[in-house]
This record gives sequence, C-alpha cells and structure tokens, in this order.
Amino acid sequence: MSAQAPAIVFDQDAIRRAVNATLTDFLADQSRSAHHRGLPQQAAQALSGFLSSGGKRIRPVLCVAGWQAAGGTGAPGPVIKAAASLEMFHAFALIHDDIIDASDTRRGQPTVHRQVSTEAAILIGDLALVFADDLLHSAGLTPAQLATALPIANTLRADTIYGQYLDISHSGQPTADPDPALAITRYKTAKYTVEGPLLLGAALASIPGSNTCTPTLTSYGIPVGEAFQLRDDLLGVFGNPGDTGKPALDDLREGKATVLMALGLQNATPAQHRTLRRHVGNPRLTHDDADQVRIVLTDTGARTAVEDMIAHRRQSALTTLDTADLPPHITAELRSLAFSATARTT
Amino acid sequence: MSAQAPAIVFDQDAIRRAVNATLTDFLADQSRSAHHRGLPQQAAQALSGFLSSGGKRIRPVLCVAGWQAAGGTGAPGPVIKAAASLEMFHAFALIHDDIIDASDTRRGQPTVHRQVSTEAAILIGDLALVFADDLLHSAGLTPAQLATALPIANTLRADTIYGQYLDISHSGQPTADPDPALAITRYKTAKYTVEGPLLLGAALASIPGSNTCTPTLTSYGIPVGEAFQLRDDLLGVFGNPGDTGKPALDDLREGKATVLMALGLQNATPAQHRTLRRHVGNPRLTHDDADQVRIVLTDTGARTAVEDMIAHRRQSALTTLDTADLPPHITAELRSLAFSATARTT
Repeated sequence: MSAQAPAIVFDQDAIRRAVNATLTDFLADQSRSAHHRGLPQQAAQALSGFLSSGGKRIRPVLCVAGWQAAGGTGAPGPVIKAAASLEMFHAFALIHDDIIDASDTRRGQPTVHRQVSTEAAILIGDLALVFADDLLHSAGLTPAQLATALPIANTLRADTIYGQYLDISHSGQPTADPDPALAITRYKTAKYTVEGPLLLGAALASIPGSNTCTPTLTSYGIPVGEAFQLRDDLLGVFGNPGDTGKPALDDLREGKATVLMALGLQNATPAQHRTLRRHVGNPRLTHDDADQVRIVLTDTGARTAVEDMIAHRRQSALTTLDTADLPPHITAELRSLAFSATARTT
Repeated sequence: MSAQAPAIVFDQDAIRRAVNATLTDFLADQSRSAHHRGLPQQAAQALSGFLSSGGKRIRPVLCVAGWQAAGGTGAPGPVIKAAASLEMFHAFALIHDDIIDASDTRRGQPTVHRQVSTEAAILIGDLALVFADDLLHSAGLTPAQLATALPIANTLRADTIYGQYLDISHSGQPTADPDPALAITRYKTAKYTVEGPLLLGAALASIPGSNTCTPTLTSYGIPVGEAFQLRDDLLGVFGNPGDTGKPALDDLREGKATVLMALGLQNATPAQHRTLRRHVGNPRLTHDDADQVRIVLTDTGARTAVEDMIAHRRQSALTTLDTADLPPHITAELRSLAFSATARTT
C-alpha cells in the first residue's frame, strides 16, 4: 500500500455515508442477481429495509478508526467494504437476537420476524451472515490483509454468538451474582462492538509492526464497550422508548441478566427482593409493575452503582488514550466516542 | 503445489475418516478454548454430538473428488479441511432447517432444538456457520487457492439458504406446478450437495487451465443432485423411518412442495385431488391419512413418474462422464456415486 496522505481525515459522517452506499449497492446487486436466477428477492430486500431503518454504524466507524490508529493510509475503499461487512454481520446478529428475545419492535419498526415469519427471519439472518463474509472477501483486500483479517473477523463473530448464548443461558431468572452479566457484557458488546472492530481495522493497516497499537485498542475498547452495554441496560429499564426505539418493558419481561439487576438483587431488602422476583421475567409485566421495579433498582442504589461503573470505565479508557501514542486525530475521535457511546440519552 | 503422486487414491472411507478426525479435533479445540475463556462449552459439544451422530459425508467426498478431477495432487491436508468445512456448514443448515420445519428427530435422535431449546439451537447453528468459515480459512490453503475458493464457497452458501427460503415460501399448500419444487431441488440440493462441493474441490486444484473440467462437473452434478433430492422426496413419503432416520409423516404434515406432490395433484381425479388437499399440510395427519395419500400418489402415476425422472437424470450424468476426460479413477467414483446417491433404500 502506498504511503499517501490519508484519503479520509476522520469524518464520521463521510464514513457512514460510504458504508451505507456500500451496503445499498451490495444488496441491490444481490437482489437483482436473485431475480435473474428465479430466486426470491424478498430476503435481500428485507435486509436492505432493515439496514436503512437506522443504526449508528458504530462498528464500521471504529473499524476505520482502528485502521488509521495502526497507521493505515491509502485508498480507503477496501477498508470501507470490510467495515460494511461488520454492519451486515450486525444485521444478522440483531435479526436472530430479536427472534430469540421474541422482540416485536426494533428501531421503532416491527422486527424482521414480525414482518415476515420466524422461519423466514432465521434464513434472512443466515443470509446476512453469508453476505457479511462475501463483503469482506470481495472487499479488494490484498492477500496479506485478508490473511490477517479473517481470523480476527472469525473470533469477533464466534465471541458475539457465545455472548448471546451466555445471555440466553442466564435469562429469565437473574441472580445476585454480577459475574455472568459482566461476561455477557464483555463478549456480546465490549469485544463485539468496540474492541473487535478496532482490531479488525488495525489488521487492515498491514504495516509490519503496526500492531504495536493492539494493546492500546484493547485497553481502550473493552472498558468503553462494557460502559456502552451498561448504559444500554440502564436505558432498557429507565429509557424513553421514543428515544431508544425499543419498548420499555422488553428487558424486564425477558428477565435479562444485567449487572443492574444483579446489583439490585444483591442490595435488596426482603420486600424489595420479592418485588424483583415477582416482576422480572414475567412476560405479562405491566407498566405499573415496571415502575415498582424501577423504584427498587433506584432505592437499592443499583442504578447509581451502574452509573459509577460506566464513569469508571469511561475514565479508564480516557486514561489509556492519554498515555498512548495514537495519531492525534484518532485520539480525539476515540475520546469523543468514549463520551457519546456511554452518555445518557434520557 | 508440487506435482507428487496423489497422497490419496480415491478412498471414500479414508476421506470420511480424515474429515471426521478434522471435525472432532476442531470442535475439541473450540470447546477447550471456550472453557478457558469462561464461555459455555455446550455449543461446541452439541455440534460434536450432532456431527458424530451420522451423515454420509457426501459433500466432503465430492469436494475431494472435484479436487482430483481438476488434477489436484500433493498433500491432501488442506483439501480435507476445506472439505470438512462443507460438513460443518451442513450441520448449520440441518440444525436451522429442523427448527424451521419443526422436526423432532434427525438421524434417529432428537433434533438439536429438542435437545436444548429453539433459541439455543439458532445460536448453535449460527456458530456452526462461523466455524465452517474458520475451518476453510485456517485450512492452510495458499493465498491463490483461498482467493479462488472463497467466492465459490459463498455462492454455495447463499444458494443453499435461498433454496431453503424458496422451500418455506412454497410449503403448506403445494400446487400442481412442479416448477417451484424443481427450483428448490436445484438450489437446495443439486447445487448445494453435488455441484458446489465438486466445484469447490476443483478450485483447490489451483492448476492454471484446470477449470476446463468445470462444465463437466456441472453437467454431472446438477442432474445427480436433482435425482438425489427426488429420491429423498420419495423416501420422505414412502420410505421406512427405520432406514431414513426421520419420521415418515413429517414431509406430508409439513406440506412440502415436492415434484412428487405436484405431479400427483396434476394427474389426480377430483376425488384424489380432495384426498391430497385434505391431508397434505395437515399437521395432525395420521398414519391412515398418510396411507391414503400414498395410494393417490401411486395410482396417479406420480411415484412412477418421479422414478422415471430419477433414472433419466442419472443417465444424463452417466453420459456426461462417458464423454468427459476425467481421470479414470474419478470417473469410476462419480459413476458409482451416481448410482448410490439415487438408489432406492427401501
């Protein structure tokens, strides 16, 4: 790769636009090709609709950031395509998660399995996973880039699925032990959403010795990712559905094993404990029941404790950035991201 | 790749053993690694149990055959691993298919979603798909082999999922038009089970000009694969569950869109038509109902017509082999396979 000036100074909006255009073009090609071969276009079209319905593109943005953090320069096209493959993988993960969690809405719209059927949505998710491969394989990476990127992409994928597996293994009946919830947070979000995309991007820099930044990206990515999930858990209980795009009661009805809930159970009086046990994991939980749970999670100090954990992790990530030697514009972006990914949105 | 004598003369049993050892070792590694990282071992173990419960390994065998057909020689290790990745992909496809079809048994055992849960089985299937990638990527292929193999593997995967998508789109209410059933047969079986594995193997030969055998492999693979599925459809209705390992009533209860059923509907008298309409797709269909359906499918000539289609396709594949210029030991193997894959097993 030639050592030109970076073709993208870090412009999140430009990255999002380029990723969106890549996804749109790829799925339009897939849909056309399916039509030509007498195959149903509905699957690619459903993915297109899903991907254009929202999403912050945080993983692709972090992938490009990782690339630049590791000194990647030159034409950004292949990196954008590899970054887009992360968003396609994310579509797969969300579509299957929504089936598993029996969620009715996502991004303010009916989930894919509510639009089509559970059976079709399983297959649409499967296709998204194959398409994610296809995008990565056909990104125009050099053989050396591909050889470095593939194991990282596979680890990221397996970890995400393992995290979800842990999640369902502990759903329904949360315990006062926060460790399983922390492990879920680490695999399902921290590695998947932050560390993995950064490392994949860094791998694409393909500069000998460039992976000296790998430990930095990990010690930034894991705490930011954990804080991101802890924020998401808080929003799942206390958030405004108008902002989060998902119903306020889903996490509680599902009995999701979160650190928030573990701390609530840990610090509850017997009466508070009974309230949590009665309502959390009850698929028919009402708005009034949810209010009672919210009061317990607030009164036990669990909500504040999770806010503290978020602040602590954000600070740890910021300290990593302060002492690392990343390009200044990347340090600035990652710093800003540490705030935006973990900030309140209510 | 050096031009040694082939390390495997075509020995199906040796290929199966090598593929099985590869799968067992890979999953044992995955299970150990999951344990080390505090992740559930159940997923890898469930896959290991599933893969060791049976299966003819027809796709891996054909992959190695395709490799030798295209003149592939030298150490077979990487080709065996690539072939094993097809079997891992097959585990993914079957686990998700069984969820979609609500099947209770497979290979004479409870299906994965009956052993664990539907939610866990979705994720175990997902993990198998990621593991299939991992096996292919880490097979030790040269960059040139990998670059040729990846698009073929992706096409095979997408086509399989599209075939299943077509299948569920037409299930429940079969019509007298055999075209959708033939398209399903082509994508879900002929390309996936026979042509795709042969082409993937041929791609691994990496010999310039070796793909002159590609048209031969296609014009052999498609009819043999179609005949294989047509046989499977017959067995799904007329087969002995003790031989097929799956319950005799599943296909009928599901209302699977098969060529057999389309031809039955096409040639039925009004009374026979009513019998098919009443019973096919009825989830509570009894053994007596099934017998009535079998009588109609026999009396209308549909069963014989499908037998004729099988014989015709097998003959077409054999003619291709007669006029092609494949290595003699491969021609012999493919000829034998054309018989075994399409023969009655009742």
